[in-house]
Amino acid sequence: MRSQVNRQIVLAARPHGNPKESDFEIVERPVPVPGDGQVLVRNLLVSLDPFNRILMGNANSDQAPIELGETMFGFTVGVVERSDDPAFAVGDHVVGFTGTTGWQDYAVSDGSDLRVVDPDAVPLSAHLGVLGVTGLTAWVGLTEVLDPEPGGTLVVTAAAGAVGSAAAQLGKLRGHRVVGIAGGPEKTRHLLDDLGLDAAADHRAPDFAERLARAVPDGIDTVYENVGAALFPALVPHLNRGARIAVGGVMSQITRTGAFEGPDHLPDLLRAALYKTLTIRGFDVTEFYDRYPRFLAELTPAVVEGKLHHSAHVVEGLEAIPAAFPRMFTGQVAGKMIAEIG
Amino acid sequence: MRSQVNRQIVLAARPHGNPKESDFEIVERPVPVPGDGQVLVRNLLVSLDPFNRILMGNANSDQAPIELGETMFGFTVGVVERSDDPAFAVGDHVVGFTGTTGWQDYAVSDGSDLRVVDPDAVPLSAHLGVLGVTGLTAWVGLTEVLDPEPGGTLVVTAAAGAVGSAAAQLGKLRGHRVVGIAGGPEKTRHLLDDLGLDAAADHRAPDFAERLARAVPDGIDTVYENVGAALFPALVPHLNRGARIAVGGVMSQITRTGAFEGPDHLPDLLRAALYKTLTIRGFDVTEFYDRYPRFLAELTPAVVEGKLHHSAHVVEGLEAIPAAFPRMFTGQVAGKMIAEIG
Repeated sequence: MRSQVNRQIVLAARPHGNPKESDFEIVERPVPVPGDGQVLVRNLLVSLDPFNRILMGNANSDQAPIELGETMFGFTVGVVERSDDPAFAVGDHVVGFTGTTGWQDYAVSDGSDLRVVDPDAVPLSAHLGVLGVTGLTAWVGLTEVLDPEPGGTLVVTAAAGAVGSAAAQLGKLRGHRVVGIAGGPEKTRHLLDDLGLDAAADHRAPDFAERLARAVPDGIDTVYENVGAALFPALVPHLNRGARIAVGGVMSQITRTGAFEGPDHLPDLLRAALYKTLTIRGFDVTEFYDRYPRFLAELTPAVVEGKLHHSAHVVEGLEAIPAAFPRMFTGQVAGKMIAEIG
Repeated sequence: MRSQVNRQIVLAARPHGNPKESDFEIVERPVPVPGDGQVLVRNLLVSLDPFNRILMGNANSDQAPIELGETMFGFTVGVVERSDDPAFAVGDHVVGFTGTTGWQDYAVSDGSDLRVVDPDAVPLSAHLGVLGVTGLTAWVGLTEVLDPEPGGTLVVTAAAGAVGSAAAQLGKLRGHRVVGIAGGPEKTRHLLDDLGLDAAADHRAPDFAERLARAVPDGIDTVYENVGAALFPALVPHLNRGARIAVGGVMSQITRTGAFEGPDHLPDLLRAALYKTLTIRGFDVTEFYDRYPRFLAELTPAVVEGKLHHSAHVVEGLEAIPAAFPRMFTGQVAGKMIAEIG
């Protein structure tokens, strides 16, 4: 049923630590009217991402938050309902790829933040996951930052997460031995059975160090790091000479601030960097948006041919988002989180 | 007076922590006789370097130590006394640039570890300092690892040390704003007055954080890191987006092992790496020995023209080395340490 109003999820309170349902409010506003040259999009799918927590404020990040009362930013897939722009026809399916189309039923756009997609080529949800910024982040980290030679051992942390699972599978497609790290036996089973990784290690297991050692008998050549703490020091002794580490996320740090308990592992990393000639590089996917066409050209066939597992954790209805989003930060959700709202 | 025997400094005991005089023994052996195609070199100068401590064992390094009773490795400058190799004439001055000529009066060589130098071009000691592996390490870190654009702010840690002072001055020659960090007012005065750096900060001062902040008003674009602990976290908040860090040494860690007291600064570094898109890279100068000709071509004129300060802390006599070397690890020595033995 099409809403006769535009429901918007706005920021009601800035969370401390994990977000909670009451940090959001759903407001109803008139469906916006597009102006000259503009497009009215009705959103069908909304992407829920870790960066949404950062935009709520009080996060451990340099990124400026949105204002209280402002509609939450977010990537979307929608359908064009009205158009005064020849590039978009009524009925076209469009991806809102900059986040401006947001967590709401309707968005008005000048077209610069929309890309038309074929709804029959791949499931629409894939445009928010493996073919969206999630997938681009994985692809950039692997191809532009790590650029590993095929055959080496790639370790992906938070490998059951949205970006992690894309990075891990991309590593497999490119011929690497891929070892995924995730929390809990259900997630590690998913890494082996559904994603087809070569090995997996449960970082919550008491014998994680031994499991990791067994999983990387030839050491580690590249690391795609999504977590940003805790388990990272366990990887360092296994890094091979010349190993490269891409830091694509610090998921564990988004909802926390303050000092981290010792011992201090930084000196160990600097020593390893020297004696193993490591390269550690953080990257920001927004600096790589010009790679989108190349990324889509490589990944779309893989998705069409079913070579990339891209299940999503689907939330039903825009009204369910405020309660669902906080679960992303308590380890209860594996893979990409998407809300079906239209 | 020329020794009629070959005095060798051999490893007598493996130190724990800082080395001490009794870890060495001076033995007297016959002057070696060169074989077919070989050269006999009488050493004049011996280089004392942090890596000598690593070679003694029980160091916080992957590098294999030498055997007990073995002569200490070390770079040297010597003079050819006998030669059966047409590339070397009696009286030629030669640099032993691989360390095999060692801490001893005489060495026999097949020539592969020797390079003839002009004794009138620059002081012989410069071949162990700014024009030796010390200088090459600085040059590689600056040009091959950091490659900063002129005009940015370069911070050098342990800037009064042998490698640090070369890196800092090279930064100045290349047009960067160079800030040196060192321990104590005497060393920071040296950085400003003798090396001509733009600013200096004493990391032993109780208000180091404020001094550092004043020294880098435009943030930090590149770091040449020689220390490997302690003061590094203080730099992180000042790093600019896209900053690059070369890890060329971990001087503070060579003589210690075991865990470092908290808080844990590794998560902070990973978060900064992500949000500031940092690159942190360790390097091993031995992988860059093929750059020697390019390095010498650039640096030799600067040394000849007096543009590079290259004072050395000179130890008189081979017999003085065992007592002098340990002082390198107690912060009492600034700059390059060299023994005059012939």
